[in-house]
Amino acid sequence: MSGRLPGGAHLPGSRTLAQQLGVARGVVVDAYAELLADGTLEAVVGSATRVAGGLLAGPRSAASGAPAWWPEVELKPLSAPGALHFELGQPTLSLLDNRAWRSCWNAVARQVPPSDYGDPAGDARLRGALAAFVGRTRGHHLSAEQLIVTSSAAQSFGLLASLLPPGACVAVEDPGYPQVYQVFERARLKVQPCPVDADGLQVAALNPAARLIYVTPSHQYPLGVRMSLPRRLELLAWAKQHDALILEDDYDGEFRYDAPPLPALASLDEAEGGRRVIYLGTLSKVLTPSLRLGYLGVPTPLVQAVVQAKRFSDLGSPWAVQQAAANFVLGGYLDQHLRRVRRHYAAQRSALGTLLQPLAPYAVLGGIEAGLHACLHLAAPLKAGVLQDVLRRRGVEVATLGEYSRTSEAQALLLGYGGLSRADLERGAALIAEVIHEQVQKAAAG
Amino acid sequence: MSGRLPGGAHLPGSRTLAQQLGVARGVVVDAYAELLADGTLEAVVGSATRVAGGLLAGPRSAASGAPAWWPEVELKPLSAPGALHFELGQPTLSLLDNRAWRSCWNAVARQVPPSDYGDPAGDARLRGALAAFVGRTRGHHLSAEQLIVTSSAAQSFGLLASLLPPGACVAVEDPGYPQVYQVFERARLKVQPCPVDADGLQVAALNPAARLIYVTPSHQYPLGVRMSLPRRLELLAWAKQHDALILEDDYDGEFRYDAPPLPALASLDEAEGGRRVIYLGTLSKVLTPSLRLGYLGVPTPLVQAVVQAKRFSDLGSPWAVQQAAANFVLGGYLDQHLRRVRRHYAAQRSALGTLLQPLAPYAVLGGIEAGLHACLHLAAPLKAGVLQDVLRRRGVEVATLGEYSRTSEAQALLLGYGGLSRADLERGAALIAEVIHEQVQKAAAG
Repeated sequence: MSGRLPGGAHLPGSRTLAQQLGVARGVVVDAYAELLADGTLEAVVGSATRVAGGLLAGPRSAASGAPAWWPEVELKPLSAPGALHFELGQPTLSLLDNRAWRSCWNAVARQVPPSDYGDPAGDARLRGALAAFVGRTRGHHLSAEQLIVTSSAAQSFGLLASLLPPGACVAVEDPGYPQVYQVFERARLKVQPCPVDADGLQVAALNPAARLIYVTPSHQYPLGVRMSLPRRLELLAWAKQHDALILEDDYDGEFRYDAPPLPALASLDEAEGGRRVIYLGTLSKVLTPSLRLGYLGVPTPLVQAVVQAKRFSDLGSPWAVQQAAANFVLGGYLDQHLRRVRRHYAAQRSALGTLLQPLAPYAVLGGIEAGLHACLHLAAPLKAGVLQDVLRRRGVEVATLGEYSRTSEAQALLLGYGGLSRADLERGAALIAEVIHEQVQKAAAG
Repeated sequence: MSGRLPGGAHLPGSRTLAQQLGVARGVVVDAYAELLADGTLEAVVGSATRVAGGLLAGPRSAASGAPAWWPEVELKPLSAPGALHFELGQPTLSLLDNRAWRSCWNAVARQVPPSDYGDPAGDARLRGALAAFVGRTRGHHLSAEQLIVTSSAAQSFGLLASLLPPGACVAVEDPGYPQVYQVFERARLKVQPCPVDADGLQVAALNPAARLIYVTPSHQYPLGVRMSLPRRLELLAWAKQHDALILEDDYDGEFRYDAPPLPALASLDEAEGGRRVIYLGTLSKVLTPSLRLGYLGVPTPLVQAVVQAKRFSDLGSPWAVQQAAANFVLGGYLDQHLRRVRRHYAAQRSALGTLLQPLAPYAVLGGIEAGLHACLHLAAPLKAGVLQDVLRRRGVEVATLGEYSRTSEAQALLLGYGGLSRADLERGAALIAEVIHEQVQKAAAG
């Protein structure tokens, strides 16, 4: 292939070459047989074996890049390393019952794994366990057959995107979860950012062409407001009228501190005999994102298509993870864990509230009734981007509301408190307060 | 919401209602507070609490099905239960070193899992272990950074589909792997079935618009032919000329029985300084599909976009599975397992060959040099569909070549022998021979 032996060149006999190279003749015979089988050599009856024609590769090309049509992508790191990060959606595992966890995984380790593909919809035991969990914690009663195991909310978005008509319109909350926008846009669907007020998504602003409406009713992402009951009913009626589906992302419906959570929108729909709401959950916030387990609770007439989409996506989730998760849920450990972390998060958000309360009226904390993050609304002269820059220089990472919105100019910082230790939370909040005071004084002086 | 209390209806005081219901007053106070927060009740200064207006849901709709635009899907079961199934791509785990397996998973169970999302490209230790494995077994030398962990070949197809220009043409082998067709077509790409001969995919037949060419050079799926070296070079030159990429699915390149495997097409490309070949592997055949682990070996200029696609697809594969797999590969257990199963499969395919050899010239076994399945080519008067039906009635499931082809009329049965016990293999092969004899005699008599 380097061109040293041109096409048609005769090769020495195997005995000769073996002698020249100082190897056993069998080695050469095997090599010739292999090269003949490849088509690299040709055997001609009554003549020596020779090099086949047409093998010569072109000159080595200069180091070339990607094809011209390949998308240009530069990945940004997800967070600055070493910073104190008020990361959204970050749970804590500091309260995990390590013994229970270990026992759930050891039980998996003891089994010989299956040698075949499982049900793409998920392991039956896990589906039953998760359906019961959703019924117990969120009042939404699903059969195991309606619950489809996915690897994450991201995958769930992708499965639904693949089932919408080409170029269909998807309405999403604005401000909202950027990954939702991105997944639907990558699937070449039209995304309508739909505004949110104190009652949740503004149903009156929905594009009548929307086939799917993405909402976070328990704790709007990222504002933290809860969708009111009248608004919920309005949304269900809208979906029925427009033959649309609702995707209810209940990403932290399990975490409410002052009042019990409202039942899931999906349970309201089911109570009405409706089949408009697809319920989306994950174990990422209630346990850990490193499990990569999520689920969709799907009205019965939609189940088959969603399962097929999951099959085309990855043929199903890993057996071992599903087994361990089923052990954890069925053993009662998930409910225990939730009780424990709910107390922890409630204490965290109280601490955050206490530390940031003196900042009013310049900065007012909202969305703090539920979830793992809060929204610090800013009044003039404060600008979220300026605060973010100053905080970053002092080693604290926060997100701005602007990063989660396509249409809103509202100024706010988003503060995830789930994954921080109490000491870090207090240090970070003190720094935020300090920087806000500085900025207010600077504006007053200037 | 049932309409029993109309909008504006006044509610009894909390003390009264508590007495009526026989509960503590605090319960009613909490319930009222919650319903006020929802917007279900309204508080009016100087008046009793009342039911809010606009809450009444419409009449219960009749049990409605899916929206009109929802795709109609009826899932077929993947295989008939209870049958002796010559299933393609089915490995055996009967030779798994259970102790080694357990130790790899126990090591995972002992660790507290991370509470955050990992690198979407995969765990660094696993990426290094798999890159070294590919270099060692397939002569394709990748850096760990070039190796991206996926959940399966299916996901790998989907990731690449999402990176092609909208509506781009993808050339796939015909006969070929139906899932490849399906995944690319679901992504709304144009799929060109491209014929295969004894040297592999016919490069001269490629559509010049093809951006991606899917090939299985080590053991064509499902014919079992190996792509010859001249054809490999022709394909690489074509891709360079047409600014296309090649997707090399090396789905059972590790299993060759008579001769060492040819180096991967990707390694030939790399040796040329080219960056045209994306190498696709999985642990499904060499270990078990229940792991749901695959990988892509990607030329450096393409890495970032593929990692981003994985991030949008599912944010990365599960931590525990990646850890256990890394332990298994780095502990040397995968190489041991491969040596063991390779001997087993070689014995299986010999047994199959011996049992079916007497069927020539009506039926001739091909593609048996490698892989976990063979192709039984049929001559007139035999018809694959007829044989499949008769065998099914006698409890044996086989695939026909027609099920794997869009353009070819060739008659053949596809016989996966990887997952069968020796006894089942012999019983199944004897039945196939019997049915073929019957059919030949019937045709001669008729």
